[in-house]
Amino acid sequence: MRSDVLDFLLPLTSVQRITSPQNQRIKDAARLTTSRGRNAQGRIAVYGVRESLRALQSDAKPVEAIVCSEITSSENLAEVQAIQKHKPFEILDLPRDLFKKTTYGDRTDGLITIFERPTTKLGSIENTAESFHVIVESVEKPGNLGAIVRTADAVGASSVIVADPLTDFFHPNSIRASLGCVFAMPKAVATAEQVIDWLTQNRIKTMMAIVGAQTLYHQADYSGNIAIVLGNEAQGLSQPWNLLLEKTELKIDGIRLPMCGLSDSLNVSTTAAVLCYEALRQRGLNNMN
Amino acid sequence: MRSDVLDFLLPLTSVQRITSPQNQRIKDAARLTTSRGRNAQGRIAVYGVRESLRALQSDAKPVEAIVCSEITSSENLAEVQAIQKHKPFEILDLPRDLFKKTTYGDRTDGLITIFERPTTKLGSIENTAESFHVIVESVEKPGNLGAIVRTADAVGASSVIVADPLTDFFHPNSIRASLGCVFAMPKAVATAEQVIDWLTQNRIKTMMAIVGAQTLYHQADYSGNIAIVLGNEAQGLSQPWNLLLEKTELKIDGIRLPMCGLSDSLNVSTTAAVLCYEALRQRGLNNMN
Repeated sequence: MRSDVLDFLLPLTSVQRITSPQNQRIKDAARLTTSRGRNAQGRIAVYGVRESLRALQSDAKPVEAIVCSEITSSENLAEVQAIQKHKPFEILDLPRDLFKKTTYGDRTDGLITIFERPTTKLGSIENTAESFHVIVESVEKPGNLGAIVRTADAVGASSVIVADPLTDFFHPNSIRASLGCVFAMPKAVATAEQVIDWLTQNRIKTMMAIVGAQTLYHQADYSGNIAIVLGNEAQGLSQPWNLLLEKTELKIDGIRLPMCGLSDSLNVSTTAAVLCYEALRQRGLNNMN
Repeated sequence: MRSDVLDFLLPLTSVQRITSPQNQRIKDAARLTTSRGRNAQGRIAVYGVRESLRALQSDAKPVEAIVCSEITSSENLAEVQAIQKHKPFEILDLPRDLFKKTTYGDRTDGLITIFERPTTKLGSIENTAESFHVIVESVEKPGNLGAIVRTADAVGASSVIVADPLTDFFHPNSIRASLGCVFAMPKAVATAEQVIDWLTQNRIKTMMAIVGAQTLYHQADYSGNIAIVLGNEAQGLSQPWNLLLEKTELKIDGIRLPMCGLSDSLNVSTTAAVLCYEALRQRGLNNMN
């Protein structure tokens, strides 16, 4: 199997075999597991085949693919090389040990792809009369953020926006929990103040998940240009969002899930899913796939 | 602070200070982090204050509480001791180092409680005309199982039943993800065959989450005595469940969530939440908290 893969790879001039742990490109790649590394280099790394293919198929600009031809399948390599014909990037082939030092966590399917960091400007988010935004403030766990992106993808949301970020769309665990959907999803990062201004200026009907809110989530009207807003795992939404509730000239409501048991809240990504699917149900999912 | 806590603790005769790592009870307790240890001893351990208090307030039979009076608050200890007045169990106080070797993962709030393993017999699950069961087959990740229990608690479900288990209700990560709700929730473990027989014999209206099913989840009728059935994270439901679908004399339907994006499925605990809240919405949540 391995010789097959190498036969397949080696004739391609774009594949560069690197075996030295001192190679600067590999050192740089290994640093992309941390937010410090990502910020310093203005690049992000995507670990795993499914996530990498979704990223390569998006608008994100690839820099290089790092493969371990001893691990990954020739089918996966062929897919990467097919994309390479349209988007120029290099392919580096690493021995197993060096690959394992470069990858994140237990991802062992032999593919890492590196991209220029995609922009996440609030101004890039489009609004129409039928937009459906999902906004999260200060979510801490990248797995929760990625799960919310996965749900937003599933319901066909227009964007995911993070206010006052505590984690990164491009944290490896966020990318993974999103199954790579984070690349195709329009997304933005801004301060809570900027997001509140943006909602107000665009007159977006805003449903804020608040423990103890009067309105049950299914009683809200999710038609039109809407945003669902969720807060931090432990603290919920911060004070400025409560002030927004008082602007009665805007269509803003606090909503909550009924809680019939011992616990007074659900996980933020679970709450997001229930709210997003209720929005989709009301907005008409009979025509959906 | 520490001397306050000790003043508070030491006069109580039921608190036993243990400082030797060779103490057999502490060695046994440390083994409860593994399923092998839990099975061998017929006991389970609960890590953390919130989860322990929920377990102590349930019908589960406590054996002992292990505290680290250097770490946990006197308020938490007072709560445990208040419960101890009604339910006899011992309290062992460990120094920090020994406590950390006995606890699971990063739980550092200084309380472990140990219980006789609660029974999980299918025959213990009650059925009425308005029961609402949540059934999961072969879920692998204890965090997913616990999250499903948390959701089942939130919607006031009658039970959570695991068919052909691959993980344990009492895995520390399951207890934690359930926030301790797993103790109050009626629960059972059985083979898929037994669960299918039970559903059939009790004529329970069964909605099975199946990728590609014809019926969209909100088109199903969740009234009456119902079960929502979810499959394994990767494989979905096994073949016997598909055969059940063909028994047209029973009210059994395959349902699915609409997927409008790149991905063809959601996480099993997310799917459970969307289905459970749709059931609750249809069953009437206007009177709920």
